[in-house]
Amino acid sequence: MKKKIAIQGIRGSNHYKALTELFNEAEVEALECNTFQELVKAVVTGECEKAVMAIENSIAGSILPNYRLILDHQLQVTAEHYLNISHNLVALPGQDLTDLVQVKSHQMALHQCSNFFSNHLHIHLIEDVDTALPAKIIAEHQLRGVGALVPKGSAELFQLTTLAEDVQNNSLNETRFVVVEKQAGTSLEADKATIQFEMTHESGSLAKVLNTMAAHELNLSKIQSIPIPYDMWRYAFIVDLSFSNRLQFQKAFSEISKISINPTCIGQYKSGKS
Amino acid sequence: MKKKIAIQGIRGSNHYKALTELFNEAEVEALECNTFQELVKAVVTGECEKAVMAIENSIAGSILPNYRLILDHQLQVTAEHYLNISHNLVALPGQDLTDLVQVKSHQMALHQCSNFFSNHLHIHLIEDVDTALPAKIIAEHQLRGVGALVPKGSAELFQLTTLAEDVQNNSLNETRFVVVEKQAGTSLEADKATIQFEMTHESGSLAKVLNTMAAHELNLSKIQSIPIPYDMWRYAFIVDLSFSNRLQFQKAFSEISKISINPTCIGQYKSGKS
Repeated sequence: MKKKIAIQGIRGSNHYKALTELFNEAEVEALECNTFQELVKAVVTGECEKAVMAIENSIAGSILPNYRLILDHQLQVTAEHYLNISHNLVALPGQDLTDLVQVKSHQMALHQCSNFFSNHLHIHLIEDVDTALPAKIIAEHQLRGVGALVPKGSAELFQLTTLAEDVQNNSLNETRFVVVEKQAGTSLEADKATIQFEMTHESGSLAKVLNTMAAHELNLSKIQSIPIPYDMWRYAFIVDLSFSNRLQFQKAFSEISKISINPTCIGQYKSGKS
Repeated sequence: MKKKIAIQGIRGSNHYKALTELFNEAEVEALECNTFQELVKAVVTGECEKAVMAIENSIAGSILPNYRLILDHQLQVTAEHYLNISHNLVALPGQDLTDLVQVKSHQMALHQCSNFFSNHLHIHLIEDVDTALPAKIIAEHQLRGVGALVPKGSAELFQLTTLAEDVQNNSLNETRFVVVEKQAGTSLEADKATIQFEMTHESGSLAKVLNTMAAHELNLSKIQSIPIPYDMWRYAFIVDLSFSNRLQFQKAFSEISKISINPTCIGQYKSGKS
C-alpha cells in the first residue's frame, strides 16, 4: 500500500511536483488538502505521517502563516526541498493560443507571467483561488477557449495540451518546501536548523542572541518576526541557522535558551541546497 | 475637489475603512485598485499622491510582497495606522440567517470566522478572491440566499442588512496599514523608522548592526528577511525601529550605513500606537 502524504492543492499543483521530487512516486500517494489548515490537521490526527508544505518563495518571500501553523501544532520540520517554479500554459487538446479567450489562475501566477500575457492581449485574465484547479475543471467540463497555468510536466495528468512553455517573467523563481511531521527528524546528516524564541522588550536583547550564534560559528541565513497570538504586536523570532557540526548547534541552542523566552527547535534537517 | 487616494479593494473593504480613519472623508476619495501592483502604479505615475496599503496583520504577520513593492518603486512610508478587524455578516434586506445558503468571502476571512460558521452548518462557505466584492455583487444582482463578510459599519454602503456582528473568532485582530508616497515625510513628530539593508555572508555581520542599534538606544520592534530579486536565496533585512529622538536615529543610521550594503531609509513617521 502506498504511503499517504498530505499536500496543499491537487495532483498537478506545485505541491504535487515537490512531493514527486522528494519521494519515490511508486511508494507515495498525495492526500489532496484544500487549505494549509487541512494539511496540518491530516498530520496532527495521524491520517498522514508527513505533509509537504510550501514555506517560502524566492520572489514573494516567506509564507508566515505556515510558520504559525507549524508552531501552533508543534510539528517538526524533517526535510526541505527547493522546487524550480515553471508555468506552462495548457488547454484542451486541439486548441491553440488564438482560440483562448481567458486564462484562469491564482493572482500570483498571473502576475508572474504578466510579460507573456501583455503580448497576447486577446486573452482575458481571471483570478482564481488556485493554480492547478482550473486545469482540472477545464478537463472535466471540456471547456473550450479557457487556459490554465500548470507546472512543467503536469499537462498529461489532466490530459491537456501545452500551448506555451515557461511563460513566467523570471526564470529565477524557486519555492522552498518543508516536510512536516509530529516527530523530530533523526538524520545524522543534519546541517541546518530552524528555531523560534521570544525576547523581553529590553533594548539589545536580540543582539545578544545573535552574538551567541556568531560566537558558535552558526550561520544565520534568515530571520523573521512572527506575531505572538493573543499578545497584540509582540513578536517571536524564527531563525534559520546552518552549521557544519550538529553538536555545535546543540551547544549554542542551549545557551540561547538561557537568554530567551520559550525557545523551541522547530527542526534539524539536511539543507536542500548542496 | 476631493483628493484621490489609492486603496486595494473597493469602498466597504478594510482598506477603505483604514482610509476613512486616516483622513477626513469629506476631503478624500478612494481610487479603487484591484491589486497592490495597481495601487503602487497609481502613486508612481502620479495619478494619486498617496496610497493606503496593508503591511501586516497581528495574526497572519507581515505581507512581505508589499515590502517588495515599496522597495522596487522607491516609495516612502509617511504614516501608519492600526485598524481593528471586524467581520459583520451581511445580506439583502429582508433576509435572515436561516435564509442563507452560502457565504462568499476571502479564504482568510472565512477562516477567521470558522467558529461562528461551525454553529451554522447549513451555510456553505465559498472562497472568493476578495472580501467586500461579494457584498457589492449581492447588492447589484439582488442575490438572495447569499451572504458576505464586511467590516463593521460598511453594510449601508452596499444597502445590505447586518445579520450578525463581530463573527470573527478572535477579537484581538488588527491590521497595520501604511501610507506610501513618492516623497519622504517631514513630520517633526516622527518616532519610528523602517530601514532596509543587506549584509555580506560573513558570520556575525547582522549581530554587528544590531549591536549598533542597541548602542544608540534604538528599539528594534520587528525584523524581516526579504529575498533580494535576481539573487536567489540571498536576503535583505527590513527593520522597524522606534526612538525618542530623531537625531539619534539619523546618527545610528549613518553608522549602520557604513557596515551594511545598500542601506535605505524606507520612511520616518509617527507611530500609530500612542
